[in-house]
Amino acid sequence: MYPEIDTPALVIDLDVVRTNVTEMAKVAARNGVRLRPHIKTHKMPELARMQLEAGASGITCAKLGEAEIMADAGIDDILLAFPLWGEPKLRRLAALRERARVRVSLDSPDVAAALGRLGGPPVEVLVEVDTGQHRLGRPPGRPTADLVAEIAAIPGIEVVGLLTLAGHAYHSRTPGELAATARREGTDLVSTAEMCARDGIELREISVGSTPTARHVAGVAGVTEIRPGTYIFNDASMMRLGVATEATTAARVLATVIARPTPERVVFDAGTKCLTSDGSGSPDWIRVAGVPYAHMEFLNEEHAVAQLEPGHHGELPVGTRAMLIPSHACSVVNLFDIAHCVEDGQVITELRVAARGAVR
Amino acid sequence: MYPEIDTPALVIDLDVVRTNVTEMAKVAARNGVRLRPHIKTHKMPELARMQLEAGASGITCAKLGEAEIMADAGIDDILLAFPLWGEPKLRRLAALRERARVRVSLDSPDVAAALGRLGGPPVEVLVEVDTGQHRLGRPPGRPTADLVAEIAAIPGIEVVGLLTLAGHAYHSRTPGELAATARREGTDLVSTAEMCARDGIELREISVGSTPTARHVAGVAGVTEIRPGTYIFNDASMMRLGVATEATTAARVLATVIARPTPERVVFDAGTKCLTSDGSGSPDWIRVAGVPYAHMEFLNEEHAVAQLEPGHHGELPVGTRAMLIPSHACSVVNLFDIAHCVEDGQVITELRVAARGAVR
Repeated sequence: MYPEIDTPALVIDLDVVRTNVTEMAKVAARNGVRLRPHIKTHKMPELARMQLEAGASGITCAKLGEAEIMADAGIDDILLAFPLWGEPKLRRLAALRERARVRVSLDSPDVAAALGRLGGPPVEVLVEVDTGQHRLGRPPGRPTADLVAEIAAIPGIEVVGLLTLAGHAYHSRTPGELAATARREGTDLVSTAEMCARDGIELREISVGSTPTARHVAGVAGVTEIRPGTYIFNDASMMRLGVATEATTAARVLATVIARPTPERVVFDAGTKCLTSDGSGSPDWIRVAGVPYAHMEFLNEEHAVAQLEPGHHGELPVGTRAMLIPSHACSVVNLFDIAHCVEDGQVITELRVAARGAVR
Repeated sequence: MYPEIDTPALVIDLDVVRTNVTEMAKVAARNGVRLRPHIKTHKMPELARMQLEAGASGITCAKLGEAEIMADAGIDDILLAFPLWGEPKLRRLAALRERARVRVSLDSPDVAAALGRLGGPPVEVLVEVDTGQHRLGRPPGRPTADLVAEIAAIPGIEVVGLLTLAGHAYHSRTPGELAATARREGTDLVSTAEMCARDGIELREISVGSTPTARHVAGVAGVTEIRPGTYIFNDASMMRLGVATEATTAARVLATVIARPTPERVVFDAGTKCLTSDGSGSPDWIRVAGVPYAHMEFLNEEHAVAQLEPGHHGELPVGTRAMLIPSHACSVVNLFDIAHCVEDGQVITELRVAARGAVR
């Protein structure tokens, strides 16, 4: 399997990527919403361009460093879905605004007030709402409507909409629970925007969605934009949630068996430095593609230790190569400088993970 | 706090580093064992040199890529504590052996046989023993003694000793349990080496130890070498095990509060892309230095969400800077290109994390 690539290595199947990108663009088009993919999953301008060419209206970034790299590649419509704070970042934002349309999300008047002093045209802001993840934002309804009014009154700021991430949907136990959480992600924001309108503030953007919720929330009346990220690669978490299959996972870690200490124990040369600890402890949080009888037990920094089911003991001898499907594709891609890209089973190129490590 | 550094950022306190390095060198000297620190924790040749100047006899690396970077910096005594497999790696090992004394650990005749075909002087090998971590190696005693005999018979290979990592010691619940596990790490290897001697194979190296077990196992008669890594920086895991205090943690993530959605919830601008998911779920797996009433709840990729105890609600307003003590220093350092180094409370230099991402 790809003998020209030494292991461990990040391998991306571009055929699967294209299918995933096209499918999500169709979901958006079918529901009449804009698609603004989060590029944190791939961190590569080449793949952001592919998403835009397939119909995305712009991109989402978490950090300025990511946005700057995407702007360097000519991408000019960026949502920075993170509260920006501090003079160095505000200076960088001002420079970024010279070459791209930039919106920023936030959840506090403090952050908005500093942004409002930037100068130039008003900063377009989306106010983040807590639809159940309990990370950023106030609850929907009156708490958020009051916050919107407070922020809208800040000079230099234009509140253009509401934004949420139903991150708690990742913990859904059934497809029904996932669908219900996703729909509420949309209806909570739409009803809050209606409350803002009654307060005299018209909001034109209702921005929602993650990969697991996108297909459900895109159909909620009033939603204007979905922001899935993981869908371009998918991962074992998406498989567990039922929104991906092994065949639709595109970013994998090619690894080699370097030890077989017991008949049932298989040790690969890829640990948390390639796969992260994200999701560890969940059943089959990392999968061995095509080897359903191997179950990941634990990772150390450079080792992945799996157990083989009875009936398969002694298989996968030292030297065997396998593709490990990560639990969380986004954080895995962040560990690699280079992705090896394959098409039709052949290695065709390398892509640089240009925004790797862009934490500021 | 360090206003010249934008957040999030990796900050290393060199005063604490020097103390930690000196203390462990004393532990080794006092017990008459050699110290071969694992450089995976810092990944920086400058700090490896500091360890050698303080008395270390050589270094330990997990991956060839790390070893090559250390050899580039003139370090010439390297233990590669990982089974090497495949032609590209064997070619690199041959080149590395031209400029450094290199030992390799492994746990299978398959891996040893390939190494034995390298040519040149025999490859010095340490056979890895499973003292309870259940990762690599066979159990101590007869299973390992038989393996040693089998590997020693392979042309081109010289078995010089036994090696183990009592990784299960990280799960110790009490200091007594930790000490007992550590001592057994040593006695298991020593008694196995005695069995090998009775079989006619004299082993001169008994290489053990991690940061939590080092102080205990260094005193076991027959142990020749300890290989702690984390001690140079320490982390919240070492604090939980009672082998470090907040004052002896040297590698921290400087972060800024970017949201205060509720009186008790504090959100920092550093998530798993800076701190990893290692250890998540353990109580106080990540600590806010000097803020004992803040308790980390969960991380997402770019967010750390902490809760304040009653009586402290409303503290840490947006813009507050804090030092986050990671759960696992080694994997955190691997996420950064640059470490900001401080001495006596002043930022004095930057060091490049030269072996970041060296997974091959």
